[in-house]
This record gives sequence, structure tokens and C-alpha cells, in this order.
Amino acid sequence: MTPTSTGRTARSRETILRAALDLCAEQSYGSVTMEAIAARARVGKPTLYRWWPSKGVLYLDVVLAEVSERFLVLPDTGDIAADLRTWIRGFLDLFAEPRLRALCVGVVGTAQHDPELKAMVRKAIHDPIRARNQSRIAAAQAAGQLPAMEPDVIEDMLISPLWYRLLISEAPLTPEYADAVVAAVVGVSDPGVRETS
Amino acid sequence: MTPTSTGRTARSRETILRAALDLCAEQSYGSVTMEAIAARARVGKPTLYRWWPSKGVLYLDVVLAEVSERFLVLPDTGDIAADLRTWIRGFLDLFAEPRLRALCVGVVGTAQHDPELKAMVRKAIHDPIRARNQSRIAAAQAAGQLPAMEPDVIEDMLISPLWYRLLISEAPLTPEYADAVVAAVVGVSDPGVRETS
Repeated sequence: MTPTSTGRTARSRETILRAALDLCAEQSYGSVTMEAIAARARVGKPTLYRWWPSKGVLYLDVVLAEVSERFLVLPDTGDIAADLRTWIRGFLDLFAEPRLRALCVGVVGTAQHDPELKAMVRKAIHDPIRARNQSRIAAAQAAGQLPAMEPDVIEDMLISPLWYRLLISEAPLTPEYADAVVAAVVGVSDPGVRETS
Repeated sequence: MTPTSTGRTARSRETILRAALDLCAEQSYGSVTMEAIAARARVGKPTLYRWWPSKGVLYLDVVLAEVSERFLVLPDTGDIAADLRTWIRGFLDLFAEPRLRALCVGVVGTAQHDPELKAMVRKAIHDPIRARNQSRIAAAQAAGQLPAMEPDVIEDMLISPLWYRLLISEAPLTPEYADAVVAAVVGVSDPGVRETS
């Protein structure tokens, strides 16, 4: 592929992803069709299907294009509680933007009926975040700043309450809520954990 | 309505809900249609639509019929940690039965594209469980057996990790995992909570 056609391809992809995001913001995710995305982006439906086998997979790419570093990075200032608050509040900011909230809810909802998409979400989003946080969590545990639990349990306990409110209870996702969750996890005393493990 | 027709109605509803559950077990939730449910239950499609406006709402009734007390009751033996383990392991049992797991995943997935169904799930399942647990949680807090956090935060932290693994990470839902989550929540020390609240 020549540099020119690569550039053209990149521009087309960008146009299509933008069209998909705009449509999702204007309508509900569920009502957007591949036809509508193609029409908005002024490309043929075959072009869409050449790159994305389904609407869910296309929107996973929208998520990956939109949900940038600014939302999901666990910083390292040396203060793990503050860093976890920053990280978890990043998810809150993500869920507070109506377009991105609709996007996340739509893709995760579709993934429940599409095992392939569910695996892609896990591999493209969940796994890389876990891998990136691993050494920071381990260091904080070694320094006695986090309880000696399985790191996966710690991270589940930090982020799953946000997803629960987003996907099931629809209770408010406030900064106070995020901070209470972080404080609880940081405040787990190891004897309580050892008692039953 | 005469008692006889009431009985007949109850039997028809039961037959339809059973047909829907069987189909969901045989195929994926996503591929079951209202037509297929009507055919399996030997009723007309109008009968189905008279009682349920959509597949999601019909399956919410299947959940309510199947997910009985045996799964979701927080017992009261006086030992809150043991009672919470029993309660959370009940969700685990629910998610371990392939038919009921597919049902829960299917209904919650559909709810992400159907705000009315999402509200029904919340009102029919989430809210009653919270209301029923309220006094037990408050009593355990008053006795110093649970941290002095918002009860809603405590319950979110207990059950959301299970939903997260079910809906997003697909990491194993083992009894050890459930117990680790309960131990962590029970082991939250109040100073850690007060620090940021």
C-alpha cells in the first residue's frame, strides 16, 4: 500500500468512526444501523463491512479511538490513594460524557449477545489496563499501602461498582461515591482478609 | 374472571415462561424470537404480546420465576461475615447454572438498549433486594461488625465484582473469589474510610 492510499484509508476510517459516534449521540446506540453509518460517512456499506464484521466491532473501535489515555491511566505520584482516586475519577469522567456513556453502555450491552465482541472488549480494553497497572499495584502492596489481596480482586473492587451503577442500578456516579470506594479498598485491613482466605 | 379462567391463564403463562427458558438454554438468548416462544408454547403470538410488550420483558418474568429465594436471601444467623458469604455464594450458584447465567446475561444485555426494561430490572430485582437487606446491614453496622460506610456502597462492593466478572472480564467466579470479596468488605477499617469522606 502506498503512503497516499494509507493516508486515504486512515482518513476514511476516521470519518466512519466519527460518523458512528455522532449517530450514537443523536439517536440511541441500539437504533443506529450500519446503513446509517455508511450514509453519514458517504461510503458504501461494503467498505464498512470490509473493515468491521458488525456494528459492535465498529463501535469497539470508536471506543478505542475516543477513550484515550486521559481517562484510564493510573498515575504514579507515590501516593497510591490519591492515584487510585484520579484513576477511578477518570472512569467517572468517561461515564459523565453522554456520548461516551452511551457508547460504553451500548458496546457492553451488545457484547452480552455476541461472545466474539465480548472477548474483543476484554482483550482490547480490560486486559491492557490490568497489565499496565500490575507493577504499580504490586509496588504499593510491597510498601504496605494496599492490602495483601490478589491484585485482580483489588482492581475488581475498585472499578466494578462504577460499572454496576452504570449497567444495573443506575444510582448516581458522584465523585464522593468514587472516593468512598477507593477509601474502602485502601482501608481493607489484612487480618480481615486473612480470616477467610 | 372466573377461577377456572384464572387457573387456565396461570397455566398458560407458566407454559410460555418454561418454553422461553428452554429455548434460551438450547440456543443463545439473542437468537430466541417471540415467534419461536409462541410456537414452542403452542400459543398465538398475540397471546404473548398481550402479556409482554417485548422479549426482554418476557424474560424478566422468567428471571423472576426462576431466581427464587434460594439464591438471593441474606440470612440472619448473627454472624454477618458468614451470612454475607452465604448471600454472595447464592449469586455464584445462580451464575453457575448455565441456563440461569444465560438468562441473567441476556436480560441485562438487552436492558442496555431498552431503558424501560432497565428500569423494570432495577425495580423488580435490585430495589427489593436492597430494601430487604437494609435493616440487617444497619444492625451489623450498629454492632460494629461492618464498616460505617453508606449501606449502598457496602452492597455495591459486595455484589458488583460478581457482575463485573459475568458481564465484562469473564474471569472465573469461584467460591474463593466470593469469599475474598466478602472478607475485604468486612475488613474495611473505618479510619481508611474517614480519611477521604
